[in-house]
Parts: sequence; structure tokens; C-alpha cells
Amino acid sequence: MKYGLKYIFPMISLLFLTCSKEQETKDLQPKNSSVFSQGKKITNDNFTGTTYLQMLMEADSLNSISVGNVTFEPGSRSKWHIHPAGQILLGMDGVGYYQEKGQPKKILRKGDVIKCPPNTPHWHGASSDMPFVQVAITGREKGETVWLEPVTDEEYHQYFNKIP
Amino acid sequence: MKYGLKYIFPMISLLFLTCSKEQETKDLQPKNSSVFSQGKKITNDNFTGTTYLQMLMEADSLNSISVGNVTFEPGSRSKWHIHPAGQILLGMDGVGYYQEKGQPKKILRKGDVIKCPPNTPHWHGASSDMPFVQVAITGREKGETVWLEPVTDEEYHQYFNKIP
Repeated sequence: MKYGLKYIFPMISLLFLTCSKEQETKDLQPKNSSVFSQGKKITNDNFTGTTYLQMLMEADSLNSISVGNVTFEPGSRSKWHIHPAGQILLGMDGVGYYQEKGQPKKILRKGDVIKCPPNTPHWHGASSDMPFVQVAITGREKGETVWLEPVTDEEYHQYFNKIP
Repeated sequence: MKYGLKYIFPMISLLFLTCSKEQETKDLQPKNSSVFSQGKKITNDNFTGTTYLQMLMEADSLNSISVGNVTFEPGSRSKWHIHPAGQILLGMDGVGYYQEKGQPKKILRKGDVIKCPPNTPHWHGASSDMPFVQVAITGREKGETVWLEPVTDEEYHQYFNKIP
């Protein structure tokens, strides 16, 4: 039995070490797995609720495309607005909504991509109980975003259609 | 000692179970945590090594921006090329290289964003021992990509400068 213990105790120690190593590796992983940082809270009145913007690339005289990472907290959304040159949205994380005027609301998730045509009134935001992170790609060559009226609670909570 | 074993063996079993549970959880996680799918292998000769493309959005008559998710296997890269309207690259995963003609090679990682000016010869690809995933945002209003000569092994393996 003396020899049995000689092997059993190192075995137990090894197992403890293995398990605590796994835990350590987990602890080192970032808690937020998003690709881009959250950026700063948006303080203008073009959004309802709490949203954050991290600009990734500003448009300039040579390349008229701007790219921004927007994080919507649950329930938050943009006002209705139009982009004179349209916009492309990349769903990065969470669950969000997108709606064009006169169309049903759509649900957006990580990996979904949507094109908003030029001069089409629309809004986007988080779902009511999950945040949503999107990358917005906007052509600026035909002018800046035109902001319209807020999305009412009734519009926001209407039934949605899932993207096929 | 008889009683000692009575406690030691259940303890060992419990530790084994805990560790195998950790492993099981890991196995259930998707192997590819990228936001977009890998898409299809690129079969044209504009790339050296194995690369994949998932188009996310095609340019059209209303919105001239195309967006694609490119996955480079380690060592793979594009030929030198130019974009008449420039390009924006978003680092999504892994480690990659980017170089403009006459400039030092730069390293790109998840979360890095780079703007390639119009008509500037450049190449991009994976690092030599890690894959790289990027989203490429390309204006098409001034014409299509012009492909130039392949990136030689000497050019590819030169010393690089990290993005500040």
C-alpha cells in the first residue's frame, strides 16, 4: 500500500495542476470577444437609448468611404434616417433590428450583411433584450446622413420578419 | 489505509470527470470563431498559396462598394495589385502582412484597420505561420482591381514593422 500511495498522490497533484491550468487559460481570454472596441458613448440626439461608436476609418478626399463600429444596448436604436449614397451593415455580434420605411422589420445577427439603398428612410438598432454590434460602411461622396424623426415604441416593438 | 482508499479513488474519479467535462465543453465550441464563413477556395492565379473568398456584398449600380471576407492560409498572399478607388481592410482574425510598394511590410491582427490609397501598388496575405482573415471594402466606381506581378519569397519574408 505504501507503494500504491507513492503513485496515487503524484497522480492527484497532476490532475489538480491540469485542471487549474485549464482555468488559468480561460481567465486569460478577453471577456469581450468583439473584433473592434466599443468606442465612446454617442451623445447626440440621433439615437434613442445607449449606443457607442468606434470610428474605424474616416472618409477623405481620396477614399469617400467611412467605416464605424456601432454598439447598441438592448432597446436602443437610431432615428429614421437616409444615406445619400447608401450603406452596408455587417452584423458582428448580438441581435439587432433593421427596417426600411414601408417594409417589415428584419432581425440581424452575427454574420448577416445588409445593403441599405441610397435615399431610403430606415432605422437600425438592438433587439429589445440583446445588444447588437454592427460595422457600418457608408459612402460619403453624395453627402452626409440626413436624420429624420425618432422610431416610436410602437414601430420598434412591431412584429419582425427574419432575414431568409 | 482501507478507509484512505475509500476517499482517494472517488476523488480521482471526480477530478477525471471534471477534466473530461472541460474538454467536452471545448469540443462543442465552433473551431472557426470568425464572424463570416470562409467561402470558396480562390482558383484564379492572383494569389500564391491557398486563399478563400466569401463575398459579403457585390457592388451594383446604386452602391459601388463591394465587401468580401478573405481567408489566407499561412504563407499565402495576393499578387501586387492596385485598386483605382482604394481599399479599406479590417483585420478579423489571425496574423497577416500588408505592404505598399517602397514601404516596409506591416503586420495586421484582429481589430487592425488599414486604408490603401487609390492606385498604390500593394499586397496582403497571411503571416508565414498563422492564417489571416480580413474583410476587404473596395470602391468599384473607378474601375476594377489591376493585378501586377507575384510577391516573391524574398519580398514576402523580409523584416516587418508592426503597426503602431
